[in-house]
Amino acid sequence: MAKDQKQFVKEITDMTVDFPQWYTDVVLKTGLVDYGPVKGTMVIRPYGYEIWENIQAELNKRFKATGHKNAYFPMFIPYSFLVKEADHVEGFAPEVALVTHIGNTPLEENLVVRPTSETIICSMYAKWVQSYRDLPVLINQWANVVRWEKTTRPFLRTSEFLWQEGHTLHRTEEEAREETLKMLEVYREFMQNVLAVDVLVGKKTEKEKFAGAVDTYTMEAMMLDGKSLQAGTSHYLGQNFASAFEIKYLDSDGQQKRPYQTSWGVSTRLIGALIMAHGDQRGLKLPPRVAPIQVAVVPVAQHKEGVLEKAKEVANELIKAGIRVEFDDREQSPGWKFNEWEMKGVPIRLELGPRDIENGQVVLARRDTNEKVTAPIENIADTVAKLLDDIHENMFKQSHDFTYSHIIDCENMDEMKVALDDKNFVRTMWCGCRECEDKIKAELQATSRCMPFDQSAAGRLKNKCVCCGKDASTVLYFARAY
Amino acid sequence: MAKDQKQFVKEITDMTVDFPQWYTDVVLKTGLVDYGPVKGTMVIRPYGYEIWENIQAELNKRFKATGHKNAYFPMFIPYSFLVKEADHVEGFAPEVALVTHIGNTPLEENLVVRPTSETIICSMYAKWVQSYRDLPVLINQWANVVRWEKTTRPFLRTSEFLWQEGHTLHRTEEEAREETLKMLEVYREFMQNVLAVDVLVGKKTEKEKFAGAVDTYTMEAMMLDGKSLQAGTSHYLGQNFASAFEIKYLDSDGQQKRPYQTSWGVSTRLIGALIMAHGDQRGLKLPPRVAPIQVAVVPVAQHKEGVLEKAKEVANELIKAGIRVEFDDREQSPGWKFNEWEMKGVPIRLELGPRDIENGQVVLARRDTNEKVTAPIENIADTVAKLLDDIHENMFKQSHDFTYSHIIDCENMDEMKVALDDKNFVRTMWCGCRECEDKIKAELQATSRCMPFDQSAAGRLKNKCVCCGKDASTVLYFARAY
Repeated sequence: MAKDQKQFVKEITDMTVDFPQWYTDVVLKTGLVDYGPVKGTMVIRPYGYEIWENIQAELNKRFKATGHKNAYFPMFIPYSFLVKEADHVEGFAPEVALVTHIGNTPLEENLVVRPTSETIICSMYAKWVQSYRDLPVLINQWANVVRWEKTTRPFLRTSEFLWQEGHTLHRTEEEAREETLKMLEVYREFMQNVLAVDVLVGKKTEKEKFAGAVDTYTMEAMMLDGKSLQAGTSHYLGQNFASAFEIKYLDSDGQQKRPYQTSWGVSTRLIGALIMAHGDQRGLKLPPRVAPIQVAVVPVAQHKEGVLEKAKEVANELIKAGIRVEFDDREQSPGWKFNEWEMKGVPIRLELGPRDIENGQVVLARRDTNEKVTAPIENIADTVAKLLDDIHENMFKQSHDFTYSHIIDCENMDEMKVALDDKNFVRTMWCGCRECEDKIKAELQATSRCMPFDQSAAGRLKNKCVCCGKDASTVLYFARAY
Repeated sequence: MAKDQKQFVKEITDMTVDFPQWYTDVVLKTGLVDYGPVKGTMVIRPYGYEIWENIQAELNKRFKATGHKNAYFPMFIPYSFLVKEADHVEGFAPEVALVTHIGNTPLEENLVVRPTSETIICSMYAKWVQSYRDLPVLINQWANVVRWEKTTRPFLRTSEFLWQEGHTLHRTEEEAREETLKMLEVYREFMQNVLAVDVLVGKKTEKEKFAGAVDTYTMEAMMLDGKSLQAGTSHYLGQNFASAFEIKYLDSDGQQKRPYQTSWGVSTRLIGALIMAHGDQRGLKLPPRVAPIQVAVVPVAQHKEGVLEKAKEVANELIKAGIRVEFDDREQSPGWKFNEWEMKGVPIRLELGPRDIENGQVVLARRDTNEKVTAPIENIADTVAKLLDDIHENMFKQSHDFTYSHIIDCENMDEMKVALDDKNFVRTMWCGCRECEDKIKAELQATSRCMPFDQSAAGRLKNKCVCCGKDASTVLYFARAY
């Protein structure tokens, strides 16, 4: 068993020595993902894809509860559509994949493989929306999108990735702004209550907002290396695309008007987020509510009479209660299996040997704390369900405490440098000008993450810009980021 | 009310006069689908997409129960991969979409947007499979695919469509052949028990098989115009792709061996199938198990005291029982609503007015038979659940009876012509040669659909080829087809 353990640990790089390599080891060696044959692409393997399916199910519930319906729009966008919104084309044109031929035959107009779907969806909304009675339009799409990136990493940044994109139209600016913030709140609640990852929420600066948006709101999650990961965004688009695509409706007062628009999305990036927010030296630590396997049932001394039968019985009882179970009766030693399920981040390992059966109990090993407790076989499903909730709560608390203990208030560039080098987020006052953001990026390799809704730090920090020293009234987070 | 009804019927072309136009009217006017801006593409609107989601959920259950897991492979395939399997490239090269540029920059190698994923998946399997312990590999993918078609129709044939593709690897030919037939059987059971559509199952001829397969099995569904729709296929691929992609494994006897492979798929085409197998002059008739709305609750005289409240209460009771309900308290007249829900194919309309409340009953109108019955409000959820099952059974029986009453045994080309012109499938004896299939296609515009597993007709038909008159021992179906 000692030998097995050593072998497994050897497979994964020490996260304190080389965090990026730890990440790569974890995602490849636990079978979440593999590199595709085309540079920058990824294959999402079954263990990774099941996390995505669980994310989808949880988000679909929330989208439906807020009145949205799913639909599917074509992946190919006429190049001329991309050009209609000036900021949008500037943002996306350099990185889009272009379809120019069918077989050997050139197309009359090149097609863009969607990097996002505002343009094609607006072209349809222009057709569907005629009257104020057609509003609001509340549609979401699950789809693959393509953005050709120079530096890629599985889940975090790949040429093709999977996501959802909500696209809504509203009668008034007020209603559209309300929707923008409502969906950000849906994301925040999901991050905390499902992925057990804490996030900072707020508004992006002009420099960092979505190409084509009036305002972009974001949630930023802190990874264990102190870097920020933009986990999801919600955009108030105003009438920018509605004007470009001439969407208009007849209002109840007989006037033709332009609707107001939002879009919002999260992607397979979330899988990268939960890995880097929760993992440890042994590998993955999956939040119970999306873990493909919530409990690995490992019989001990499984050749002994009655062990496999009893273990199977316990496993079936858990399955009946809706718990996701892997029953592991493979030939390998229990120690080998323990290490594998730990590396794969399974929240609970349930062990059951002859002595346990005699005592009417099982051993439950928690992945989050590495604690082992015994529990009666009676009512085992209830015990396990409660333990899964405890694990979730504990993981969220860890993420929350880690995040807030790594936010440093800074009042000048020297303080900022120290804080960033020490793997922290930086909370500062900012004058509002782009030049300061550019300078901070150039000198400290940090970008502005968001102007938090919670601006209370303004009362503690002196009201001078961290960079230029001019008057400043806005609290802004900076961090190094994925 | 009479005026409303007339208006609705006018919107949909008479199916006996122009079936293709009836289909187009139905899919567009019920909000299932719309044309995309690029020729040959479709937008799947929420009402259509929800049918697809229900299809996915039902199939996922069955794929999981047979040991398969979902995964996701990149959409872009290096052109060189496509060329590795000779039949495969011949079949697909003319209709693939080619990505040649990123922004303004040409790619070193052109990329194919997947028309199907055998090649890219095999390139990964070659990496993942080393030992007999890695077999079988049982993976399914839900994805969009692109095949550029000259003649397109929503759901039936579009440049981009959604589908699932299973790709499995096995140690022996026997096991792979068993998998091929097992998945065809999963499809058949799904068609009958979920979509309420009967199918004929059997093997494709050499002429009609998948580009790269050893054997292709199919299920063929009869549409109401007597044409056949290939509703799903399952391929035994032998070692064709495994050889092209050099997949090999170390067997327990110490020898390097090639695995045997299968692939199988169904697509959004199934939505076209259920529309054309069940619809009628009033529009859609959706099978209850995939209908986005199973029950439309329509209050009658909803301005009267207590009506809306009671109707809402009944609707909530149904929703609590897991039934998909639309509560329709819009301003329009009940007659207008009745027509709309009929056109949209909702299996049950539940009406509830002041007199019904007095009598403690509701009115249930079946879409399949147009019958209206009253039922007590007490235990309404059980009553409705049972009625949905009855409707399913009745719709399946109609599909079954229609299919088998439109199969005509033919022994010569003249008989065939009459049978096909009368909108039937033709069951014949066939000598086994390609020339006869080509001739039948040229002269009668019919294609071979399958050699049915049930070859019992060979005892009734004379043992001569329907086309060339030579000795024939194979029963083969021909039909005009989508």
